[in-house]
Amino acid sequence: MTDGANSYGVIGHAALAIANGKIAWLGEMSDLPDFEQNQVEVIDGKGQWLTPGLIDCHTHLVYGGNRANEFEMRLEGKSYQEIANAGGGIVSTVAATRNATEQQLFDSALTRLTALHQQGVTTLEIKSGYGLDTENEIKMLKVAGKLAKALPMTIKRTFLGAHALPVEYKDDPDGYIDLVCTEMLPQIASTQLADAVDVFCEGIGFDIKQTERVFAAAKQYELPVKVHAEQLSNLGGTELAAKYQALSSDHIEFLDEVGVKAMKQANMVAVLLPGAFYFLRETQLPPIQQLRQQQVPMAIATDANPGSSPINNLQLMLNMACTLFRLTPVEALAGVTCVAAKALGEQEHKGQLAVGFDADIALWNISQPAELCYQFGVNPLASLYKFGQKVL
Amino acid sequence: MTDGANSYGVIGHAALAIANGKIAWLGEMSDLPDFEQNQVEVIDGKGQWLTPGLIDCHTHLVYGGNRANEFEMRLEGKSYQEIANAGGGIVSTVAATRNATEQQLFDSALTRLTALHQQGVTTLEIKSGYGLDTENEIKMLKVAGKLAKALPMTIKRTFLGAHALPVEYKDDPDGYIDLVCTEMLPQIASTQLADAVDVFCEGIGFDIKQTERVFAAAKQYELPVKVHAEQLSNLGGTELAAKYQALSSDHIEFLDEVGVKAMKQANMVAVLLPGAFYFLRETQLPPIQQLRQQQVPMAIATDANPGSSPINNLQLMLNMACTLFRLTPVEALAGVTCVAAKALGEQEHKGQLAVGFDADIALWNISQPAELCYQFGVNPLASLYKFGQKVL
Ligand SMILES: [Zn+2]
Ligand SMILES: [Zn+2]
Repeated sequence: MTDGANSYGVIGHAALAIANGKIAWLGEMSDLPDFEQNQVEVIDGKGQWLTPGLIDCHTHLVYGGNRANEFEMRLEGKSYQEIANAGGGIVSTVAATRNATEQQLFDSALTRLTALHQQGVTTLEIKSGYGLDTENEIKMLKVAGKLAKALPMTIKRTFLGAHALPVEYKDDPDGYIDLVCTEMLPQIASTQLADAVDVFCEGIGFDIKQTERVFAAAKQYELPVKVHAEQLSNLGGTELAAKYQALSSDHIEFLDEVGVKAMKQANMVAVLLPGAFYFLRETQLPPIQQLRQQQVPMAIATDANPGSSPINNLQLMLNMACTLFRLTPVEALAGVTCVAAKALGEQEHKGQLAVGFDADIALWNISQPAELCYQFGVNPLASLYKFGQKVL
Repeated sequence: MTDGANSYGVIGHAALAIANGKIAWLGEMSDLPDFEQNQVEVIDGKGQWLTPGLIDCHTHLVYGGNRANEFEMRLEGKSYQEIANAGGGIVSTVAATRNATEQQLFDSALTRLTALHQQGVTTLEIKSGYGLDTENEIKMLKVAGKLAKALPMTIKRTFLGAHALPVEYKDDPDGYIDLVCTEMLPQIASTQLADAVDVFCEGIGFDIKQTERVFAAAKQYELPVKVHAEQLSNLGGTELAAKYQALSSDHIEFLDEVGVKAMKQANMVAVLLPGAFYFLRETQLPPIQQLRQQQVPMAIATDANPGSSPINNLQLMLNMACTLFRLTPVEALAGVTCVAAKALGEQEHKGQLAVGFDADIALWNISQPAELCYQFGVNPLASLYKFGQKVL
C-alpha cells in the first residue's frame, strides 16, 4: 500500500527481508535472492497477511482522571448546570491533569498505550493540551517522551497549548495566546519536547486570528503545524493551516470545497476521526467525495481522549471509518498506515512495506485484508515487529 | 443489581462468600460472619469492583466463512446484482456453514467465544439458523454443545431453523415450515439439543402465520420461544410471541405501544441489539421510553453474526447502548447481567450478586461502574470466576 494507490498492492507467496531494522528486500518468494541460510533467521508467516504496523496519528492519550461521571449524569438527564456544578467538561480533565504527578499520568497512559500496541500499533502521536499552563503542558510532553521508552513504539509529540482556554484566562483569550506563543512554545521548542504544533480552531476553541498567531510562532521555531478544524462549523481553519503548509487538518466534518482544494494545494492530509463522530452522535459527514476527487489523502485515527472519544481502539476505527464514513477497506487501511505516516511527516520511513522503510510490521491471522475492517472483537494480530525485532 | 431496581445497589467495603459454587453470603465487610480462617481461601479484591459475570443473551456465534468480501464490494459501490453473483448475503453463510465440518465450525466459533470470555462473559446464548436443513441445524447445535465444554461458560442453545428460507425451498416457505415443525423440531427436542426456539418474523423472514406454526410446535415440545421481530417493520411478531409467553422479543426498533404493553403483560424481556443497529446504519430507535414506562426490562446483546453484526464484543455493546440508544449505565449494566439472565430463563441462578445465585463473578479494575460503559478499548477485567472457580 502506497499513498495514492487505489489497491492493496498485494504480493502473494511473498517474502520480506529485514536488515538493520529496515526492509531490505520484498517480493515474490520465487524471486528471493540467495541468502546464506546460516546468516539469516527465517520466520515462516504460515500464509498469514503482513502489513505495515498500524499508525494512530491523532491521540490525546495522556490525561488525568476520566469523565465517566459526566457521561452518566448526561444519560440520566441531568441538566447542563448540574453537570457543570459537578465539575464536568474539559475543565475537569485539566484539573485532574494538573493535579496528577508525572508518574500517575504515565501509569494511566501506559495502560491505554499498551492496548493500542496489542492491536498492532507501532507508531502514534500524543498531544498535550490538558495542562494549559507552561509547567503542565511540559509535564504532559515529558510523560509522552517517557512512554516512548516504555514500549517499543515510535511516539511523535504535538504541542496543543491552544486546546482550550484555561479558567484563569477566562476573559482574556488573547492573553492566553500570548502565553502560548511567548512562553510555552519557546521553552518547548528549545528543549525539543514537541515535533509539531496544533490548535483547536473552533467557536468553542480559538478563532482564526488566534490560530494564526500560534502558527506564525511555530514557524519561527521551525515546527510543523496541524489543526483541529471544521468539526462543528466552518471557520476557515483548514485554509489557514494550508497557508502554513500544515501536515494535516483533523475532523473537518464541515469543510467545504474551497477548503478541500486548499488542502490539496498544500499537500495536506485529512485526518478523519470516526470515534468522535460516533461518540458525539454527529450527523454531518466529512466531505469524503470531494476529498477523493481532489485526491487529498485520508488518515484515520482514534482521537483517544476522555471527552469526545474515550475509545482506545484503532481496529474499531477501521470498522467505523467503513461503516459510518463509507470508506472502502483499501482507503481505511491506507488511513492507518501510509497516509497516517504522512500526517506525521514520517512518509519516508513508515507506513509502507517497501525497501528502505523501517521494519515496523504486523502479521495478521486473516484470509483477506478487508477482514481487518469488517469484523471486530477478535484481535487478529498474530505478531508484531518493531525495527525488525519481534515485540509481540 | 436486581431486575427492576433503578440503581446499582452498591455495597461499599463489601465481602462476598462462596461455597459449593454459589454465593453463600454478601454484605458489608464489617458484618462478615466469623469464618474459621483455615477453612477458607481469602481473595483480596483490592478495592476493585465486583459484578455478576456478563451474559450475552443473543448470539449467532457458530457459522462458516465470513462476509468480508461482500462488505468490501458494497463499500466499493458494486451493485446488488454483482454482490449476489459473487455469492453474497445469508445464502453464502448457509453454504459455508453446510460445507464446514463440526471441527471447523467449532474452531472458528471458539476464537470468538474466547474473546467474549476474556471480556468477562460467563454465560451466553448461541442460536442455530445457518444450516436450514435437519442435518446442519443439528450440527450447529452440537457444536454449541461442544463449545460449552471447551471453556468454563454456560451456553444456552436456541433452535432458529426459521431464520431464513433455504434456496431449495425458494418458492415454498410453508413447505419449509413443515420441515421445521415436523422433522427438525421433534428430533432436536427429543435429543435435548436446544433450550428454546426462535423465529425471524419479518418481511425478509417468515410471516405471522408461519411464525405461529413454529411457536405452536415448540409449545408441544415444552420448549420456550423467543422472536426476532419488529426490526425493519411492524408485523406483530412481538404480540404473537407474547401470546406464547415468549422469553423475549429481540431488535424491536419498530415496536409500537400495543406491542410494548403485550410484552409487559407476558413478562417478556426486550433484547436490544445496538451492534446490528450500528452496522446496518439504522435510524429508527427502539421504543426505549415506552419500555421504561411499562417497565419492560431491557437486555443488551451482541447479536454476533457475520451479516448484520460482525462484532464480538459485549463491552462495546455497553458503550453503544448508552451512546446510540441513550440507556443509562445502570440500565445497560442490568441489560448484560440480571435482565440478560431473565431473557435466558436463568433469572433464579444468574446475573445477580445475591445469596443462592451461581458464583459467576467478574472483578473489574475501575473506579466506578459507569466506566464499564463510558470507555472502550482497554479491557478492565481483572479476574473472572465461574461457579466460584477462578478462570481468568
Ligand atoms: Zn483531537
Ligand atoms: Zn439475531
